[in-house]
Amino acid sequence: MKLDALYSELTIKSNAKIALLVMDGLGDLATKEQNYLTPLEAAKTPNLDALAKNSAQGRMIPVAPGITPGSGPGHLGLFGYDPLEYQVGRGVIEALGLGLELKSGDVAARANFCTLDKKGIVTDRRAGRIATEVCEKLCAKLAAKVKKIGDTEVIIKAGKEHRFVVVFRGKGLEGPLTDADPNREGFAIPTVHPRDEGNSGQIKMAGLIADFYKVALPVLEKEKPANGFLMRGIAHQPHIPLFEERYQLKPACLAVYPMYKGLAQLVGMKKIEGPQTIAEQFQRYVEEYENFDFFFIHYKYTDKAGEDGNFAAKKKAIEDFDAALPILLKKKPDVLAITGDHSTPVALKGHSWHPQPVLLHSALSGWDKLDRFTETGANLGSLGVFEAKFLIRLMQANARMFDKFGA
Amino acid sequence: MKLDALYSELTIKSNAKIALLVMDGLGDLATKEQNYLTPLEAAKTPNLDALAKNSAQGRMIPVAPGITPGSGPGHLGLFGYDPLEYQVGRGVIEALGLGLELKSGDVAARANFCTLDKKGIVTDRRAGRIATEVCEKLCAKLAAKVKKIGDTEVIIKAGKEHRFVVVFRGKGLEGPLTDADPNREGFAIPTVHPRDEGNSGQIKMAGLIADFYKVALPVLEKEKPANGFLMRGIAHQPHIPLFEERYQLKPACLAVYPMYKGLAQLVGMKKIEGPQTIAEQFQRYVEEYENFDFFFIHYKYTDKAGEDGNFAAKKKAIEDFDAALPILLKKKPDVLAITGDHSTPVALKGHSWHPQPVLLHSALSGWDKLDRFTETGANLGSLGVFEAKFLIRLMQANARMFDKFGA
Repeated sequence: MKLDALYSELTIKSNAKIALLVMDGLGDLATKEQNYLTPLEAAKTPNLDALAKNSAQGRMIPVAPGITPGSGPGHLGLFGYDPLEYQVGRGVIEALGLGLELKSGDVAARANFCTLDKKGIVTDRRAGRIATEVCEKLCAKLAAKVKKIGDTEVIIKAGKEHRFVVVFRGKGLEGPLTDADPNREGFAIPTVHPRDEGNSGQIKMAGLIADFYKVALPVLEKEKPANGFLMRGIAHQPHIPLFEERYQLKPACLAVYPMYKGLAQLVGMKKIEGPQTIAEQFQRYVEEYENFDFFFIHYKYTDKAGEDGNFAAKKKAIEDFDAALPILLKKKPDVLAITGDHSTPVALKGHSWHPQPVLLHSALSGWDKLDRFTETGANLGSLGVFEAKFLIRLMQANARMFDKFGA
Repeated sequence: MKLDALYSELTIKSNAKIALLVMDGLGDLATKEQNYLTPLEAAKTPNLDALAKNSAQGRMIPVAPGITPGSGPGHLGLFGYDPLEYQVGRGVIEALGLGLELKSGDVAARANFCTLDKKGIVTDRRAGRIATEVCEKLCAKLAAKVKKIGDTEVIIKAGKEHRFVVVFRGKGLEGPLTDADPNREGFAIPTVHPRDEGNSGQIKMAGLIADFYKVALPVLEKEKPANGFLMRGIAHQPHIPLFEERYQLKPACLAVYPMYKGLAQLVGMKKIEGPQTIAEQFQRYVEEYENFDFFFIHYKYTDKAGEDGNFAAKKKAIEDFDAALPILLKKKPDVLAITGDHSTPVALKGHSWHPQPVLLHSALSGWDKLDRFTETGANLGSLGVFEAKFLIRLMQANARMFDKFGA
């Protein structure tokens, strides 16, 4: 019997409130340069410390040993979806990151401006990394000219520097296609093809891309250096089972950055807009307490500081989070998990594969005799080291949402 | 390669003696109400403490993260069978729990007395929860009347209150069938159907159930309030590979309660009858030492106290077990594991999903520098947190029963 089917079969609806607090990129490493303390260990965290008492701890493998996840797989795992089984397309992630609200059936592509010579040969794949303002101007120009191709709506949104995203919204469209990108200079932009030759949605989509180039390239003809563009990762978002149906929990998302709102939306969470700080997010959680069963609350600044390699900033971000925590605890959820979507060690200045620490608090979590919530402490916890996709199952268990298996 | 096949291929017969001591529901939680001690931590356990020195420890997930197992899956896991792959039917478990010895091919059903009105409509699905003595009297009446249907033997055994079990023993019988239970009042008892329409064993079995109702209902006609009965979970026990063939170990069961004897019998263990206390069980182990390779010794009272939410009783049950332990240690097995089939936390008054602690002692277990056997200590052990189905493989390894894999 498949495990997901068993979980579904055993699920009982409950009135419990569950909150998942994600400090993005929380996990870190104890290195000599940092006096052998992680930011979480170095930070003053009186509120997390108090919570650690009466909590279970452990560490989570985001995807599989040694795999460093992007935000997509990192969050899908936290939402309980096996990141290997449910993959989010690159174009989709980029579109979500730019704040585009994707609909079921949309096909998204990553695009970037490039420089073409008179014969149409790519001479600079990034058009000299034009400024973001130039990119925005060019995207506006393209968007004004190309609103539709036949029945299909075309949505163009500028990103940073030379990057932008194109979304095709119409009937019967499918991906993935091959790239409209030679992947090196000195070649023309290749024509795209269906990855699966017999797929009518992909065939239709390949035709749309060709038509898009026909109308869009002349718009850029006189531009310098960005007189062309490449398209990659042309794919639609495969179906992901809805969170509410899968877990029998009505979910809400309290995130500030578009990428995380987008990921939450992909699994059908309701986005609560407005709050800009973690204190405001927690306050809004209190106000919305009765309206939802599950709250995903995302905090970006731990990851940002990690990416910058800024130890002091990461420590400060953790302390700011800790200082705001009492607002949420005024209306303490029945089950509370605090973790990251992956580690972003200061020493690495980027995402990593190191298991992130997790704290799980409920009337039934027990206490692992740990006085603080830290990476080293979490190594000693009763949850052990486990795959992130099981966290939601442990939260459901702590909410008494599973019937006994077998007699 | 499938893992089970690899284990089989590498297995070497050995003369080692292995004992699995199951303190049912052993695992617990450290909560404020209990002064942050689990019963195992609070108990005085000089003999377990002595054993902890020179032992490895860890914690075991009975089935999967968050899943609370019944005794069936809990024990199948301990016996090394994946509880998701090998499921024991509800009716089978009930029959085993009532001490019925099932044979291969038997079909068992859970049944309960109900009240029917003149038109055969179910007006009370539990017949007012009649007393156990009334149930026994009615079952005896039914059993006297219905001994056979055609070639098929019918065995009826009373349970508690309105509950009983019916076993059909004959040729070519199979389950599962749909229930002879409307699942609510106000409806007639539905006719049962094969779950798989083309299955001849199920078709035959559905006919037998119909015939059983024809002869049995008239027997109850004049009874009040139990003038009818419902049947659910009508299924046969699917084949489970025999323990002795699978592990190359001749197994014995020393259990007091019928449910655990039944589960051991399902995998082909020899039941040793007689002992009623843990001291007697250990003494009998010593006497039978030469006759078997593997001893499953089951102790119920830790679970019972947990189910009652009685901390003092659970602590006492552990101390009683500890006090008896020297009897077994007079003839110490080469490999000894002490654990539970799941946790039964006092705070929960029931089975739970929390990993149970396990102690593994052999000449090759090493020592994890832990002075006691406790949940918190086990979190730090060299065995880590692992699925219970692997315990027997670790015991086999400690008994030097596996050849090297690869060169």
